Amino acid sequence: MPEATANIGVVGLAVMGSNLARNLASREGNTVSIFNRSYEKTQTLLDEHPEAEFVPASTYAEFAASLTTPRTAIIMVQAGKGTDAVIDALTEVFEPGDIIVDGGNALFTDTIRREKAVRETGINFVGAGISGGEEGALNGPSIMPGGSDESWVTLGPILKSIAAVAEGEPCVTHVGHDGAGHFVKMVHNGIEYADMQLIGEAYDLIRRGTGKSPAEIADIFSEWNRGELESYLIEITAEVLRQVDAETGEPLVDVILDQAGAKGTGAWTVQTALDLGIPVSGIAEAVFARSLSSKPAQRAAASDLPGPSEAWTVADADKDAFVEDVRRALYASKIVAYSQGFDEIVAGAEQYGWDIKKGDIAAIWRGGCIIRARFLNRITEAYAADPGLVALLTAPYFAEALTGTQEAWRRVVVVAAQAGIPSPAFSSSLAYYDGLRADRLPAALIQGQRDFFGAHTYKRVDKDGTFHTLWSGDRTEIESAGSGH
Amino acid sequence: MPEATANIGVVGLAVMGSNLARNLASREGNTVSIFNRSYEKTQTLLDEHPEAEFVPASTYAEFAASLTTPRTAIIMVQAGKGTDAVIDALTEVFEPGDIIVDGGNALFTDTIRREKAVRETGINFVGAGISGGEEGALNGPSIMPGGSDESWVTLGPILKSIAAVAEGEPCVTHVGHDGAGHFVKMVHNGIEYADMQLIGEAYDLIRRGTGKSPAEIADIFSEWNRGELESYLIEITAEVLRQVDAETGEPLVDVILDQAGAKGTGAWTVQTALDLGIPVSGIAEAVFARSLSSKPAQRAAASDLPGPSEAWTVADADKDAFVEDVRRALYASKIVAYSQGFDEIVAGAEQYGWDIKKGDIAAIWRGGCIIRARFLNRITEAYAADPGLVALLTAPYFAEALTGTQEAWRRVVVVAAQAGIPSPAFSSSLAYYDGLRADRLPAALIQGQRDFFGAHTYKRVDKDGTFHTLWSGDRTEIESAGSGH
Repeated sequence: MPEATANIGVVGLAVMGSNLARNLASREGNTVSIFNRSYEKTQTLLDEHPEAEFVPASTYAEFAASLTTPRTAIIMVQAGKGTDAVIDALTEVFEPGDIIVDGGNALFTDTIRREKAVRETGINFVGAGISGGEEGALNGPSIMPGGSDESWVTLGPILKSIAAVAEGEPCVTHVGHDGAGHFVKMVHNGIEYADMQLIGEAYDLIRRGTGKSPAEIADIFSEWNRGELESYLIEITAEVLRQVDAETGEPLVDVILDQAGAKGTGAWTVQTALDLGIPVSGIAEAVFARSLSSKPAQRAAASDLPGPSEAWTVADADKDAFVEDVRRALYASKIVAYSQGFDEIVAGAEQYGWDIKKGDIAAIWRGGCIIRARFLNRITEAYAADPGLVALLTAPYFAEALTGTQEAWRRVVVVAAQAGIPSPAFSSSLAYYDGLRADRLPAALIQGQRDFFGAHTYKRVDKDGTFHTLWSGDRTEIESAGSGH
Repeated sequence: MPEATANIGVVGLAVMGSNLARNLASREGNTVSIFNRSYEKTQTLLDEHPEAEFVPASTYAEFAASLTTPRTAIIMVQAGKGTDAVIDALTEVFEPGDIIVDGGNALFTDTIRREKAVRETGINFVGAGISGGEEGALNGPSIMPGGSDESWVTLGPILKSIAAVAEGEPCVTHVGHDGAGHFVKMVHNGIEYADMQLIGEAYDLIRRGTGKSPAEIADIFSEWNRGELESYLIEITAEVLRQVDAETGEPLVDVILDQAGAKGTGAWTVQTALDLGIPVSGIAEAVFARSLSSKPAQRAAASDLPGPSEAWTVADADKDAFVEDVRRALYASKIVAYSQGFDEIVAGAEQYGWDIKKGDIAAIWRGGCIIRARFLNRITEAYAADPGLVALLTAPYFAEALTGTQEAWRRVVVVAAQAGIPSPAFSSSLAYYDGLRADRLPAALIQGQRDFFGAHTYKRVDKDGTFHTLWSGDRTEIESAGSGH
């Protein structure tokens, strides 16, 4: 058995795990034990990175023996049954007080279940969302750990050592207990879906409206990346659009098949929001836009359906103004997506009893992760100014931003509908904005319909109580003991 | 113990159960046994409806003894744990070959689980969706039973005797095995959400654009109900809009609190669609519109956010044309909602191995249920003409309807965006339509972004294979063994 020399271990040495192990090893004070189900990958990592001075283990027993107490191990395997198997193996060789971290993309309800089961053994279980892809894992991701306060004492310094740094602060915070970390990571991914779809719509509108080339549009995104939209996704959009396919000489974006894949976290975000009663329409439209794109048979059958009778182009003199309108529509829609995402975090925290500091979440998303963006500072500030903020988009900074963009946003949605260019996320976000600020909504009519066909009752604007009209009787109104639903 | 004289029994005598029992008793050939957990409701039903000649039972043993074999009982209790308790009690007193029907709004995955468990006892378990509310239960609902072929032999004639009749045919069919009936009922409810939201948006636009009163708009809906939009929901919308509040003298719709309730089946429809990868954006927007309406604190905070700078009204001379545009937008959006709903049914059937006849589903929705409508015949015809139809909206009849409505639909979405009137379902449906018929989608850019930050790979338009660009290397493209996701 090896001597206990490592303060942290990594289980699972695919790309993400290997990179995270190298990141850990590169930081002062860390000695990293590594374990993989097949030893081959362990050997490869040892051979390729002697500078990391990894402590290799070939069995779980050796792995446990190599770790100083409290033993701390980060699992980096594919989410699902593989995770349960590794947790079972580690709980057998670990002792009370030790810490098992799941760094994969687990569904937060699985994390809650696992934390509860592992806690019975006296071992700490921490579900930690890790964002930033392979490159983030290696150089500094944004990390969203849940789990107990006790585990955070040991784990905090280790995670701070490897996290991305934004404006001097490590992009990691103790999000909340049990599944809180994976919950927040899930919502992060949902926002990422919305952000990407909005960028896609902006690109599509500019290209089809102005006839600019992908390279020219890349310059526009680079320009946008110097302003309030500054973000990693805007930056890499410019990179992708600038890329030329070596084989055909065409822009790469024209050679890529336009069927978007998904790994499920966007769908989870929407499904969870539906359970919580939170309207995350922008995120939902982004998820649906991907699934629609991946229906080639339906798209082929629908390709003959008619669009607008008149072709649409933006006159040369109006092109700059149009591009600026699209930029504003993108900014406004992005505020809506974040507002919806933070609503889901607030509702989740309430439902599951997590003390989540919204401003801290925005702060740790400033670096390392896919949605890192300049404007996250404004979110942190908004929650600092008003911790009980009922909706992000009503905070003064964002309300002002929306005031300055909403007319342009309307023009863009109008043009998209007129020109037949699908803009589900732009238009859905605008409808959400107009819905939230409406004095009266046709929800009153819906309540009337529900009372008519299902005796679901309704409430009145002018007095308390629950009421029902005797629709199939004499149509008088009675007070009802019903629930109002 | 009573003699076995009843061919059908009902368990659970709240309004839906009582009405269904009375419906059963009113049909030639049925003798109906009734049971309720507390005998009080049984006695009330006996007293109030002597004409039904019910056979009362005060214990499950008496209930079982009162039924001829194969014993057949319909459970009408609140979905959830109550249902499981009744099933457990019935399986104890029933025998192999008997039939237990759950007529509540169970989640189809619960029905699959229950069917599997009950089947082990040799008893048949049938999850049956029943639509039509209290009035439908009494006079003839639309019934969507799942379960085994064996159970259908006994159950079919009984259900046919009580179902609504549309154009001479009873509104019931054996949908498919185990959870198929509750699955289809769930999608029915999802479509119902979309239908109601679309009607709400149509009403809101006409009211705010033309200044017409609810009573005047009621006349418009009555007029629409004589054309291709003819449906129960359009009919009752006119009734609700015509209703005057006795207390205030105001239109009732102005007195009803505009916060819409929901019982969860709409959310289930969207959550299931997300699992199946089906974009049901119109249904999702309808569910979200209800949850948005029920956030009074957020709505109050957002009420100061700015809308369009110019007020919007439709000139007198243009009002009729505007109303006709709205009618067309409603029809087009409704086609999208049904197309999305049938996509979900097709995907569910494939996922769960159900042999669902789409045309038959549309046929049994023509009567009894909330979404009953004239145009369901067109759906049946579309699937009869092409059983492998890849998308309902591409069937000739609907493609032609969309061709005739899409320009008006665009004008309505344009006006809503310009005027600041929330129309999430209209605009989302149009975006779906434009997305499905698009030659190229910005999904290609999204695939490029995903490959950039996560090495998720992409496919090409010009050759098979899965590719990855070495974004952080020399930016050459390599063929990848990756999954493309």
